[in-house]
Amino acid sequence: MKKVSKRIGLVEIYTGDGKGKTTAALGLAFRALGHGIRTYIGQFMKGYSYGEVKALKFVKPYIKIEKYGKKGFIHVKKEPEREDIELARKGLEKAKKALYSGKYGIVILDEAITALFFNLLKIDDLIDFIRNKPKEVELVLTGRYAPQRLIEEADLVTEMKEIKHPYRKGVKARKGIEF
Amino acid sequence: MKKVSKRIGLVEIYTGDGKGKTTAALGLAFRALGHGIRTYIGQFMKGYSYGEVKALKFVKPYIKIEKYGKKGFIHVKKEPEREDIELARKGLEKAKKALYSGKYGIVILDEAITALFFNLLKIDDLIDFIRNKPKEVELVLTGRYAPQRLIEEADLVTEMKEIKHPYRKGVKARKGIEF
Repeated sequence: MKKVSKRIGLVEIYTGDGKGKTTAALGLAFRALGHGIRTYIGQFMKGYSYGEVKALKFVKPYIKIEKYGKKGFIHVKKEPEREDIELARKGLEKAKKALYSGKYGIVILDEAITALFFNLLKIDDLIDFIRNKPKEVELVLTGRYAPQRLIEEADLVTEMKEIKHPYRKGVKARKGIEF
Repeated sequence: MKKVSKRIGLVEIYTGDGKGKTTAALGLAFRALGHGIRTYIGQFMKGYSYGEVKALKFVKPYIKIEKYGKKGFIHVKKEPEREDIELARKGLEKAKKALYSGKYGIVILDEAITALFFNLLKIDDLIDFIRNKPKEVELVLTGRYAPQRLIEEADLVTEMKEIKHPYRKGVKARKGIEF
């Protein structure tokens, strides 16, 4: 494994209503492994196994994914349940361990911003996470509805904007492509 | 390899001035390999080896990348040279072979839209490419400045919009992250 300490790690945010946020984070991890950099991905609000998890066997030990949500928990429509809040909080703790482990050049908090929107995470906890990251680690947060306070903490922010989406035409999420 | 013929492949476009277009395409390829789907990536205007190429050894034979540009050729500032137009045209031919080979569930024309903007490709050739794709193949095009005529041909379009970028603060592209 290459030393990651020569680089300065930034804080990146991928937000917006368009497709490509999680996917871009995965691509980042894939590209980094070519340089011998390891990535930790913590996924909030996701319990199911997706294609990316099945792909991990190819890229050991460079990419590690941990899912923090419970199976079947994907979208919150009303107030979050205590169990889900607890899972998200524990997830952030796990991510913190990865962040300080010295093992990873990139740490991705996938859907952390969505979890924030649904009151599963507190913004102060996320900002605390960001401000206390080791300076050499690249930190990536994804999810819709990034609030201004979070954007201010980031170095790089991209909004994925939906221009056209086939769901509107009735095409469902497809295995191998969307998940 | 799984049969790809059960799915209907869409046409996806990732455009805009923000970071994450090529990266999202890479992530798509990475996720798909978890499902046993193979991806062909043709990169226009790119000659150098990037992290993603070094990462390929991990994911053989699921992801194949071919670079169509000449080394060092990254941005066109004036009228394109005949050699570059020829390379792009030959690139599209190579991509067409991959498209019809039956091997790939996903075909990505990375920076094809940028190549279009710089007059290395003709829009009619790209539209022809899109309209004649086998129906089961997912086709992904990336690059800034997608023209309306191209957007009309796509099923899914995401604009990556730059909200904040560290280049503006003088941070240069970093190995392992941006390339």
